[in-house]
Amino acid sequence: MKYGVAIFPQKKVQDVANSFRKRYDPRYTLIQPHITLKEAFELEDEQLPQVVKHLERVAEETAPFTIHFHKVGTFHPINNVIYLALTDGEPVTRLHEKINSDPIYHERRFDYTPHLTIGQDLSNDELHDVYGSLRMKKFDLTSIVDRFHLLYQLENESWTVYQSFLLRGRN
Amino acid sequence: MKYGVAIFPQKKVQDVANSFRKRYDPRYTLIQPHITLKEAFELEDEQLPQVVKHLERVAEETAPFTIHFHKVGTFHPINNVIYLALTDGEPVTRLHEKINSDPIYHERRFDYTPHLTIGQDLSNDELHDVYGSLRMKKFDLTSIVDRFHLLYQLENESWTVYQSFLLRGRN
Repeated sequence: MKYGVAIFPQKKVQDVANSFRKRYDPRYTLIQPHITLKEAFELEDEQLPQVVKHLERVAEETAPFTIHFHKVGTFHPINNVIYLALTDGEPVTRLHEKINSDPIYHERRFDYTPHLTIGQDLSNDELHDVYGSLRMKKFDLTSIVDRFHLLYQLENESWTVYQSFLLRGRN
Repeated sequence: MKYGVAIFPQKKVQDVANSFRKRYDPRYTLIQPHITLKEAFELEDEQLPQVVKHLERVAEETAPFTIHFHKVGTFHPINNVIYLALTDGEPVTRLHEKINSDPIYHERRFDYTPHLTIGQDLSNDELHDVYGSLRMKKFDLTSIVDRFHLLYQLENESWTVYQSFLLRGRN
């Protein structure tokens, strides 16, 4: 079964993200607006308890933090994704690194860049238009991150939350 | 903000449900296949901690159980919903009653009937056709229920999981 780990930012951020995703993201209905902490990976049923334990440990030792989105970015020309960028992605990157370790370590093809996708699978022309119109726009969106979620993928490629993990560490 | 409480049955049940929902449920993309434990209700931010505590208590004292879906049912003529029916809905009803108490008690207009919706908002003719073709079909779908989820609704009417609650009681 395919699993993944993600942060859902607070409702107001999800609502803003959806106003763009509705138009620019063909995967809009498959998952709520999120920051991927760990990309889809295969897991056998019998490995699940060990992975849940790992994620519980990570959550135990990580303190809640605040994130702020300030502008739109793109991964073009690597891929035609448009995303809400973080003013300071460091705490998310640290969380990603803790999660992507030992029982579920996978090497990444690219450096990890925390982001919230608002458009993808765009043609070069579309990307140019959309990014061109959004790149100068300023955002001021804040969200507390006090939990992350383990999800699994259904046959129709949508994602169901398996379990939430509350960040219980102290600063 | 609007909250709700639901069970997501195991993946294989969700996949079967989605094969019908795709065709018969216009709300297919707004939430994963689920059994509603508590219908949408309004909650102020400051009430949330108390509600989370209530749900934690319920989960602590409830033991995991197994559910089995054996056939298709409908709420017609009350409403044109088609659903997967439970062989024995009793454990789900008991869980519903524990959840729908004290800090979040709401009187129901109808008796609670645990079910997994696979079609809704159908015209009478559609309902007649679909239910007519499915009513003799036998199902044999089993799922462990060892958790439930608190969700909140976004502006586009889709639902995001806020927190999972693991059933930790003993039989």
